Amino acid sequence: MRDYAAYLRMVEEALVPALDSLGEIPPRLREAMVYSLAAGGKRVRPVLLLAACDLLGGRPEEALPFACALEMIHTYSLIHDDLPAMDNDSMRRGKPASHVAFGEDVAILAGDGLLSAAMELMLRTACGMDSLRGTRAAEAIARRCGVTGMVAGQTVDVTEEGTAPTEARVSYIHLHKTADLITAATEAGACLACARQEVVEAMVRYGQALGLTFQMVDDVLDVVGDAAVLGKKTGLDAAAGKLSRVALRGVAGTRQDAARAAEEAKAAIRTIPGDTDFFVNLAEDMLNRIA
Amino acid sequence: MRDYAAYLRMVEEALVPALDSLGEIPPRLREAMVYSLAAGGKRVRPVLLLAACDLLGGRPEEALPFACALEMIHTYSLIHDDLPAMDNDSMRRGKPASHVAFGEDVAILAGDGLLSAAMELMLRTACGMDSLRGTRAAEAIARRCGVTGMVAGQTVDVTEEGTAPTEARVSYIHLHKTADLITAATEAGACLACARQEVVEAMVRYGQALGLTFQMVDDVLDVVGDAAVLGKKTGLDAAAGKLSRVALRGVAGTRQDAARAAEEAKAAIRTIPGDTDFFVNLAEDMLNRIA
Repeated sequence: MRDYAAYLRMVEEALVPALDSLGEIPPRLREAMVYSLAAGGKRVRPVLLLAACDLLGGRPEEALPFACALEMIHTYSLIHDDLPAMDNDSMRRGKPASHVAFGEDVAILAGDGLLSAAMELMLRTACGMDSLRGTRAAEAIARRCGVTGMVAGQTVDVTEEGTAPTEARVSYIHLHKTADLITAATEAGACLACARQEVVEAMVRYGQALGLTFQMVDDVLDVVGDAAVLGKKTGLDAAAGKLSRVALRGVAGTRQDAARAAEEAKAAIRTIPGDTDFFVNLAEDMLNRIA
Repeated sequence: MRDYAAYLRMVEEALVPALDSLGEIPPRLREAMVYSLAAGGKRVRPVLLLAACDLLGGRPEEALPFACALEMIHTYSLIHDDLPAMDNDSMRRGKPASHVAFGEDVAILAGDGLLSAAMELMLRTACGMDSLRGTRAAEAIARRCGVTGMVAGQTVDVTEEGTAPTEARVSYIHLHKTADLITAATEAGACLACARQEVVEAMVRYGQALGLTFQMVDDVLDVVGDAAVLGKKTGLDAAAGKLSRVALRGVAGTRQDAARAAEEAKAAIRTIPGDTDFFVNLAEDMLNRIA
């Protein structure tokens, strides 16, 4: 196992070259895709994918195109979420949103392009393997970003804004809109390492619990966080009538729920033999942001 | 080899069940995806995929999920193309466009959902195969609908509207925006039949030439066609300042070019042993629409 910084460096160095490896992209389209890809963030999904593969005996280098693909999918979802017809956010990570910088038409196409590029990159890599492990990893990612996964969560989030928050609705949105793409990382990493079915399932349970922790921490920070420290506005959920966990359970209740989800994540990862400290620390660090 | 109607029936019967086989989709999202999928059209891409696989000794039944996926991708591209920020078309195949019927937010998500569903369906099917042929077919489709394929063509079409038509620009747009998805059908069909490399290449040449014929016929009909017969408005290319072949070569010149492209398609398919009448007739029928 390497540390977070080492996996992160692998991702940062590979991301744009992976896109360019697909061939000659029209300059305006490439510019818009690279603009959003390069806007940074913690790259938690691709790092998790590499770490999961590494823990289970796979090769992180072989998993790298899948890690890059997952970050491309996350980036496409942010570009489309920010559009005027969706969340209508004009800023993203301290820079103008894609549609502000490039126009709505190019932003829509940059999102479509990143999703397509992610699939192409994974499939090309899978075609060069001597087993179906790459195909299985790509299937896990496609399923979790799709119409029963991230797109489903995003649809319910957008179409049910302003309705009363219920446990079932908030859980559905958070499980699919947020946790599914984090689960895609741990599930795909396990597939690439050719892990046994019960190990894949433990990695899925870890990913889901970590993803829910992540979303709950985000909900709490939207209320109690310092905008300057976070680098983004706060109070957005309440203003938009979003179905957040804080609206359902209050700040104190959401803190409790987050702590419980982080414990579930740690319990799931500890069923797997080997040095799981990386994964335990990730869950604890996440929770400590609202400690 | 079966006839067009037989392949078409397979596609029509499988399309919505294929979507539902992915699991529980939020009702509003499913409704929007089915609305556009069911709007019909000639289904030339999925029919071609089944026919190509059949010609080359593969099993059309095994290829059916890939055929459905290709139609989902074509449908997503129409939904996003019609958006106000893109071509701003309020009607599609005689019905209100997706964003008119469901709102822009749901239309964007229905497009994202159809692209994701297509990939998931192909990958799930590929995971159940005893070789990489499904992975190779999915790779061909992902590549041809992506950032060096359809999305590239659409970007150049949208961003270079109103500029002077040159041979290079018009050819680039038509090759990628239109012909690439038709080529995806013949290439993926050949991959699923485990065809030899030179046969795959002949099918690619056929698909490209057929796709260019299709686009040139469309360009001519936009000028000389009867809106009532076509079921859509005419004169749209000129009004939008689109880089059409007619703007470059005139109606007579485009007719000549279309006839030449149809001949290229027929020459390419005739290099392949077996009963290629289906493919020859398809090229001739296409051309006869402007005879």
